[in-house]
Amino acid sequence: MKILVLNSGSSSIKFQLFKMESEESICRGIIEQIGEELGHVKFEYAGKSIKKEVKIPSHQDGTEILESLLIDNGVIKSFDEIGAVGHRVVHGGEYFSEPIVIDKDVIRKIEEISPLAPLHNPVNLMGIRAILSLSPKTRQVAVFDTAFHQTIPKHAYTYALPYSFYRENFVRRYGFHGTSHYYVSKMGAKILGESLENCNFITLHLGNGASACAVKNGKSVDTSMGLTPLEGLVMGTRSGDVDPAIIFYLSRELGLNIKELDSILNKKSGLKGICGTNDLREIQTRVEEGDELAKLALEIFCYRIKKYIGSYFAVLGSVDAIIFTGGIGEHSNIVREKVCKNLKETFGIEIDPEKNSQNESLINSSGSKVKLLVIPTNEELEIAKQTFRMVR
Amino acid sequence: MKILVLNSGSSSIKFQLFKMESEESICRGIIEQIGEELGHVKFEYAGKSIKKEVKIPSHQDGTEILESLLIDNGVIKSFDEIGAVGHRVVHGGEYFSEPIVIDKDVIRKIEEISPLAPLHNPVNLMGIRAILSLSPKTRQVAVFDTAFHQTIPKHAYTYALPYSFYRENFVRRYGFHGTSHYYVSKMGAKILGESLENCNFITLHLGNGASACAVKNGKSVDTSMGLTPLEGLVMGTRSGDVDPAIIFYLSRELGLNIKELDSILNKKSGLKGICGTNDLREIQTRVEEGDELAKLALEIFCYRIKKYIGSYFAVLGSVDAIIFTGGIGEHSNIVREKVCKNLKETFGIEIDPEKNSQNESLINSSGSKVKLLVIPTNEELEIAKQTFRMVR
Repeated sequence: MKILVLNSGSSSIKFQLFKMESEESICRGIIEQIGEELGHVKFEYAGKSIKKEVKIPSHQDGTEILESLLIDNGVIKSFDEIGAVGHRVVHGGEYFSEPIVIDKDVIRKIEEISPLAPLHNPVNLMGIRAILSLSPKTRQVAVFDTAFHQTIPKHAYTYALPYSFYRENFVRRYGFHGTSHYYVSKMGAKILGESLENCNFITLHLGNGASACAVKNGKSVDTSMGLTPLEGLVMGTRSGDVDPAIIFYLSRELGLNIKELDSILNKKSGLKGICGTNDLREIQTRVEEGDELAKLALEIFCYRIKKYIGSYFAVLGSVDAIIFTGGIGEHSNIVREKVCKNLKETFGIEIDPEKNSQNESLINSSGSKVKLLVIPTNEELEIAKQTFRMVR
Repeated sequence: MKILVLNSGSSSIKFQLFKMESEESICRGIIEQIGEELGHVKFEYAGKSIKKEVKIPSHQDGTEILESLLIDNGVIKSFDEIGAVGHRVVHGGEYFSEPIVIDKDVIRKIEEISPLAPLHNPVNLMGIRAILSLSPKTRQVAVFDTAFHQTIPKHAYTYALPYSFYRENFVRRYGFHGTSHYYVSKMGAKILGESLENCNFITLHLGNGASACAVKNGKSVDTSMGLTPLEGLVMGTRSGDVDPAIIFYLSRELGLNIKELDSILNKKSGLKGICGTNDLREIQTRVEEGDELAKLALEIFCYRIKKYIGSYFAVLGSVDAIIFTGGIGEHSNIVREKVCKNLKETFGIEIDPEKNSQNESLINSSGSKVKLLVIPTNEELEIAKQTFRMVR
């Protein structure tokens, strides 16, 4: 069966087509600048890379372009060949702890949850509706970023706020990157030769967005992102944890309003806020050149990850492995080294500098009590697999 | 030398008089409801307890009442007998990492920092000015709640926000309860028979306000409170850590403005927000009666402390002792037990249930790698000692 995976953003559709029998990626691409003057299409298939520019007024038009790309390049003869479409949906609220075949009721619920993810759920729905209109009979499955974290216990997901905010306004920790944390946990268990149910992990998804997850017996029991993806680790442009009263202080002192503060904490903070760029490679280069703010940004980034590792050891009791994934987690040996430094005495964590600098998949020293793994994430494949499981 | 310690609040003056040679408390009391219809005075001296009601229009009037109390009850013959007055001042910003003898320049700086602690610094200054007007020649010393934390390194005190907020608007982690964290650290070292410089501690000040501190070689290297006392652990009525975007969400969804949100997070959250009361004894009673929300509040409170313990182990590398202090830390064996549960395998923490339930000062089991101490805090005595040191 062929499964098409869609990740719809506000002005883009990322897609990848899988052949499920072999779990092979057949082709992939991105349709960008939807709704702008000129849209961009990138498509990779059978070693070829195609780029073109064309006006793409809507997500609807975007999916029609996608259909043409697949047929014109001989990937498929008709859209009917696609067994199902799997959608990344950011927020599943408390409704969804599993992927689900999309019907009217599911669409209504994703809509209902939209206030919790106003930038994501409505555009995820655009992708779903575009496919519905392109090919009404194709089965569609929603795979939620929050689903893996629905096993987090109540004392870990409840904020110390008036309880009515939870009961009436759905304010709680949901967590995100769930598909990635789950995927690398499964892969980690495989590498250790254990069943996932027997594994305690701390998974670190470190990219432009970043989150940590405490995985106990294969299930998420805590994670650093919260009601929204703003909480937790330092990210490319997001602050992560701050004293919430900083918002009140900045409002008083600088006269900033809530919308401006929202934008500052989400888009102008994090690594970029500290040193002007959220490109970690650039930061590392500037550190080598002796740039003080780049050095500070890198230190803070790693320090905050380290604190979450300690914290999740306390949550988990014992930890089999720490798993690094995401663009930074997979590629920055400097970050991994700084994060693991001085964690031997209490935590039994010791990195092997050689293996780490070679980006090997197992980077702990032979004497390390805790395994250190580098595992490339593959959220699209995981979405495809979950979609396949739902429609098979 | 006799040292008078003042803790001036918005409508109260708490005071205590010490005889420094013996570090003895001579008398203590509180002057309350300043500026209200009817003020209240409580005074304890030589086993007697005096209460009276009298109108107290201002802090100035309050200190005059204080002078009369001391003279009329035969504690002193004249205010001149008082060698110095030590003031608790909440916020010292980056100016003060030590106590300081108060002069015009110090007053100007405490004023300058006031936007960082608008509810505290201005009223602390009222106390200072009242004494200045009552007895201009008496030496006064400011002891800052933030001072002990001025050794926190830059990567731990800098938030991942636009760097100009630090440079131009003084936004950083300052931390509070410093006098208490310092006091119990010194006492802890004494109990262990070590010099403070050789000790790594996690100190937990758990009262209606609550904070954790990572003490490395006797110096604060991280703490849970931040720019303000809102960040960190769950407190009586304060939320502690939350996804900062919850503020933006509640503003959008419920139309709450910044002032209302400030008040909710500071005054209607924490234990009280979850279960309706911030009285831990009441919560414990309700837990025994099977009350679900009280149980949840207690679980969240302890879980969040546990996470900070893990986090500070990662910060410190190794830890000699965890020190419990503050009303809850000193008296709630249930909280201490829950906090220490399941921390043996990784952290080597094991509580002795018997010693813990007896509120002994050393409550770890003989097999515990980490010492667990219960130490009553005494911020007033510490302020007196620091004041004495400054004027001697």
